[in-house]
Amino acid sequence: MLYTEIPTQRPNTPLLDSVDYPAQLRLLSVRQLKTLADELRLFLLYAAGQSGGHFGANLGVVELTIALHYCLNTPYDRLLWDVGHQAYAHKALTGRREALTRIRAKDGLAAFPAREESEYDTFGVGHSSTAISAGLGMSLASRYQQQSREIVAVVGDGAMTAGMAFEAMNDAVAHHADMMVVLNDNDMSISQSTGGFAKHLAAIWQSGHFVTLNIQGEAEVLPHPEWSYTSRLHEAATDAADNLFKAIGFEYYGPFDGHNIEHLIQVLQAVKKRKGPRLIHVYTKKGKGFAPAEADPITYHAIAKVNLSPVKTPIKKLKKYSDVFGDWLCDEAKQDSRLLAITPAMCEGSGMVKFAQEFKDRFFDVAIAEQHAVTLAAGMACEGLKPVVAIYSTFLQRGYDQLIHDVALQNLDVTFGIDRAGLVGEDGPTHAGAYDYAYMRTVPNLVIMAPKDENECRQMLHTAYLYHGPAAVRYPRGTGVGVEIQQQLTELPIGQAEVVAEYGHDVERISILAFGSRVYPALDVAKQLYQQFEMNVRVVNMRYVKPLDGQMIAHCIADSQLLVTVEEHAVMAGAGSAVNEWLAQHQKQIPVCNIGLPDSFLHQATHQQMLASVGLDERGILQQILQYWQALKKPQPFIAHA
Amino acid sequence: MLYTEIPTQRPNTPLLDSVDYPAQLRLLSVRQLKTLADELRLFLLYAAGQSGGHFGANLGVVELTIALHYCLNTPYDRLLWDVGHQAYAHKALTGRREALTRIRAKDGLAAFPAREESEYDTFGVGHSSTAISAGLGMSLASRYQQQSREIVAVVGDGAMTAGMAFEAMNDAVAHHADMMVVLNDNDMSISQSTGGFAKHLAAIWQSGHFVTLNIQGEAEVLPHPEWSYTSRLHEAATDAADNLFKAIGFEYYGPFDGHNIEHLIQVLQAVKKRKGPRLIHVYTKKGKGFAPAEADPITYHAIAKVNLSPVKTPIKKLKKYSDVFGDWLCDEAKQDSRLLAITPAMCEGSGMVKFAQEFKDRFFDVAIAEQHAVTLAAGMACEGLKPVVAIYSTFLQRGYDQLIHDVALQNLDVTFGIDRAGLVGEDGPTHAGAYDYAYMRTVPNLVIMAPKDENECRQMLHTAYLYHGPAAVRYPRGTGVGVEIQQQLTELPIGQAEVVAEYGHDVERISILAFGSRVYPALDVAKQLYQQFEMNVRVVNMRYVKPLDGQMIAHCIADSQLLVTVEEHAVMAGAGSAVNEWLAQHQKQIPVCNIGLPDSFLHQATHQQMLASVGLDERGILQQILQYWQALKKPQPFIAHA
Repeated sequence: MLYTEIPTQRPNTPLLDSVDYPAQLRLLSVRQLKTLADELRLFLLYAAGQSGGHFGANLGVVELTIALHYCLNTPYDRLLWDVGHQAYAHKALTGRREALTRIRAKDGLAAFPAREESEYDTFGVGHSSTAISAGLGMSLASRYQQQSREIVAVVGDGAMTAGMAFEAMNDAVAHHADMMVVLNDNDMSISQSTGGFAKHLAAIWQSGHFVTLNIQGEAEVLPHPEWSYTSRLHEAATDAADNLFKAIGFEYYGPFDGHNIEHLIQVLQAVKKRKGPRLIHVYTKKGKGFAPAEADPITYHAIAKVNLSPVKTPIKKLKKYSDVFGDWLCDEAKQDSRLLAITPAMCEGSGMVKFAQEFKDRFFDVAIAEQHAVTLAAGMACEGLKPVVAIYSTFLQRGYDQLIHDVALQNLDVTFGIDRAGLVGEDGPTHAGAYDYAYMRTVPNLVIMAPKDENECRQMLHTAYLYHGPAAVRYPRGTGVGVEIQQQLTELPIGQAEVVAEYGHDVERISILAFGSRVYPALDVAKQLYQQFEMNVRVVNMRYVKPLDGQMIAHCIADSQLLVTVEEHAVMAGAGSAVNEWLAQHQKQIPVCNIGLPDSFLHQATHQQMLASVGLDERGILQQILQYWQALKKPQPFIAHA
Repeated sequence: MLYTEIPTQRPNTPLLDSVDYPAQLRLLSVRQLKTLADELRLFLLYAAGQSGGHFGANLGVVELTIALHYCLNTPYDRLLWDVGHQAYAHKALTGRREALTRIRAKDGLAAFPAREESEYDTFGVGHSSTAISAGLGMSLASRYQQQSREIVAVVGDGAMTAGMAFEAMNDAVAHHADMMVVLNDNDMSISQSTGGFAKHLAAIWQSGHFVTLNIQGEAEVLPHPEWSYTSRLHEAATDAADNLFKAIGFEYYGPFDGHNIEHLIQVLQAVKKRKGPRLIHVYTKKGKGFAPAEADPITYHAIAKVNLSPVKTPIKKLKKYSDVFGDWLCDEAKQDSRLLAITPAMCEGSGMVKFAQEFKDRFFDVAIAEQHAVTLAAGMACEGLKPVVAIYSTFLQRGYDQLIHDVALQNLDVTFGIDRAGLVGEDGPTHAGAYDYAYMRTVPNLVIMAPKDENECRQMLHTAYLYHGPAAVRYPRGTGVGVEIQQQLTELPIGQAEVVAEYGHDVERISILAFGSRVYPALDVAKQLYQQFEMNVRVVNMRYVKPLDGQMIAHCIADSQLLVTVEEHAVMAGAGSAVNEWLAQHQKQIPVCNIGLPDSFLHQATHQQMLASVGLDERGILQQILQYWQALKKPQPFIAHA
């Protein structure tokens, strides 16, 4: 069935409705399974329209998901989904069908598999390329426990380019571990796949042959019986005669049509009987069964909710920070031919589409490979060029050693545009950028900035770029506040904060030292403190987490009775903590109220809901300041020098 | 020449003495190059005996180094050494011959290539597996700059198992980048190599054929003319017919004898004429030319200085922390069959040799693969087992995302034994473990401990192991302080510090909150403060960086006028910073002197020299406290509430 519209009413799916759990699915005939696939796909279209969220990858694995749960004895057998955004069909077939309409929402289903949500979710994911490692751990554990579970890791071809997938395959062979990897090859991660590995898969595909098992259980190479896809877009430069998986020591079977349930079941049943590390290569279409997504899988990687009733268009269209970054990148590149830009497979997400088109020879999408992305930039900087690495805060965690060891230690001139810093909303805790101040500010030589708004973001990127050495600008997911963006690029003085508001002029002052996304909320809070509580308040846009503006802090404590620090980052080891260190070092004793994220992983919700839940919206910040202030006025029971 | 002794006098090396730089080397005949190799090897034996340090890998690449500098136009052509400990011959031939006797010493040569040391050192290293990424960066930069440099990355087979090497190869093919990778295959990293990749190299080796270029410049497969090595130790399980490098899209040439200079030069000259990504596979012997090292390459990976005069044996042999870990691991494993242990290629360094022998089926050396090591443990923990990951502080930086995303987020029961925390002496800044408190303490669910001595290390490891969730014990390089180690395993209360000294009983008290390795020095300092300066001092062994013992802090501020925090970790975002946060949160204003590592990368020296240089030895801590104390007594110019 090829659908062309996203249903807005719950479709009629009688067979699907009878399958709450995989055990029920295993009682169906193959013909019924095909009907089930059609109904499930229609239901997924409906559910995604209700919830918004990941789309294309889920439509592509409907048949594969059914075949896997049919052939495996889940949850005793362990099924792992690498990158969670292919697990919606899995969720629907494991007791969570109707809840799918509220996936990614507050108190709804998690965006990705989550162990706490279902025993069928064997391993929590979000970041890619972890499933072979985790599956190998389960396989070795099962061997040690003398269990005979099947372990199956379903891994996208995009996820395979990350080094840890290779590390895990290398190790699986070392132990001759009993496990299957199902390579779900749709020739994409979120963007088009890139690199030698993608070319290799294309070469295997184009060879027109496949490796399967004959009835004696021996591997056989045969011409593919039903080669129906058009040939792959990019050239198959490598030699299909050399099979990478076999070279590393896996048994290889494939490539198979990932939408032919009957064939998939035959293959899985046959390969299940073998031991050791095995890889089954299936080819699927991202967006399969929904015509618009098949035609444009990048746009349909994820979708927004289908509007059920017409909504008013907002008067002013706010600019996304990613686009501010992308515009700046193009403008800076026009002025300076030394600028090169690097992304680890996040061209669209990082706002680099325009740059990639306009500066084709200066754009480097390195695939999902954060470690390599950072060191590649280091190598370029050694030659006197000025690389810019666009990376999400949460993914820079994967390039952390490279940031220290390859960039900062050699004081190389690399600029980092750190996107999705702070809370990220619907993607939940796996994608939160809550730790970057902490893990970056200990690194010598590194300059760290956080803009208050989209215009400052642009100017800070320019400043970081001009700085001779490693410098990072961290900015949030989503849109700016709506200020005008000055086209002219202006360098900001390094390590200099700015006072953005002064309410009242008497003593009894509070100084709020605000970082990045919390500057505007702090301004709002300050106004309320002044108007409703008659407090004198100064608000400082700190701009720099490193180097910190000590003069500004000194200026503030000279006339304040309370400092407040506020940031969209963990309180622990964060920007406020840097202020505390400065005070301790300079022997300044003044109460400091550190406001930021708590020491816990936060479940998904909208960004605003998440901020509210931890007291980081205007209301929460106000309350925390008032509480701290009131407590200050109380007598202190056991302090000698209050 | 096969040498059998390490010369203690500078050997006579007339030809070597005439070669200060590669340009001179290029004027020699091939016969002279062979003599040069012999002299250089003899000199390296002498120099290593003087300096101590990396040994086996350097002896193995003498011929390769000569051939590379002969064929390349260094430094215009870029030669990158992956893992620095194969670069001694390179240093000797690039202007630093006589300085080699002081490699790794204070103010001497760096242990590894360092950009600041020589223009021939194109990229600083220390951690492995970075050279292909950095070299690719240089190659793409050269293309963009329309330069026609040769870029050659020399990579050990051990370093190839790290995922980032694979990420870089994938990307090099994407760009059809002009670069050569010389795979220096000695079948080892520091330990024996392991995994599918090692098996693959063995299979290629055992096939008895090699790929070379004929006079028309076409690749030819020929039987190898002089196959002289014994076959490799482990089984070649994979199929040599499938060549991994060709599969990913590299041209492959090899395997060649890495000690035949003449042949190496022919090969390099021929392959240099080709374009695109090319790999030359050479087989070398670690320890080549020195009989004892050829026989036992693991022991001879690095050597201690040859004693020039007899030294007094210390009365008491102190136990290394690594061995404390190894003993504990064995003892805990005897008691609990759920314990499994994981190392990323650091079996010897982490003290796990005994465990690996006694608990063969519970020991997992995953090769150089830190990302995988951490997530493998997560997978095992999902099955109810209790994995222990032994990892150096500096290398956990490579598994940071996995620690957050795969272990802590799912609150999985994984124990981390974090070795080499703090300064590491001769290996220098690349290997410093100076950031782990900062990058770990922001991570929810994680318990972080640091022992004051070797006995507490053992008990903390036991405590971490019993804790239901992720827990880390971080301990220093080198030996303990000499306390008795109690065999009985005793669980410590989570989050509870201990007072270890009280000097004096009056007011005007100082409380020193000491972490890990700095507890004993703090005790010494406290004694001096009391005896020489008549100050009352309390010393607390904080034990936990997370959770922090707030009750103990409250107890201390109740009767103290100054808190001192001291740790062998960056002051920024470190353990002292956690104390500051607690004080701010609880509205306690008291002067705090945070003592720790400064915000800079520290050059190599002995551990004690490094501590002294940053004021972290007894003398430095004492001085810092006295200075802070004296400054406190001065009037404060601009504080409202001093």
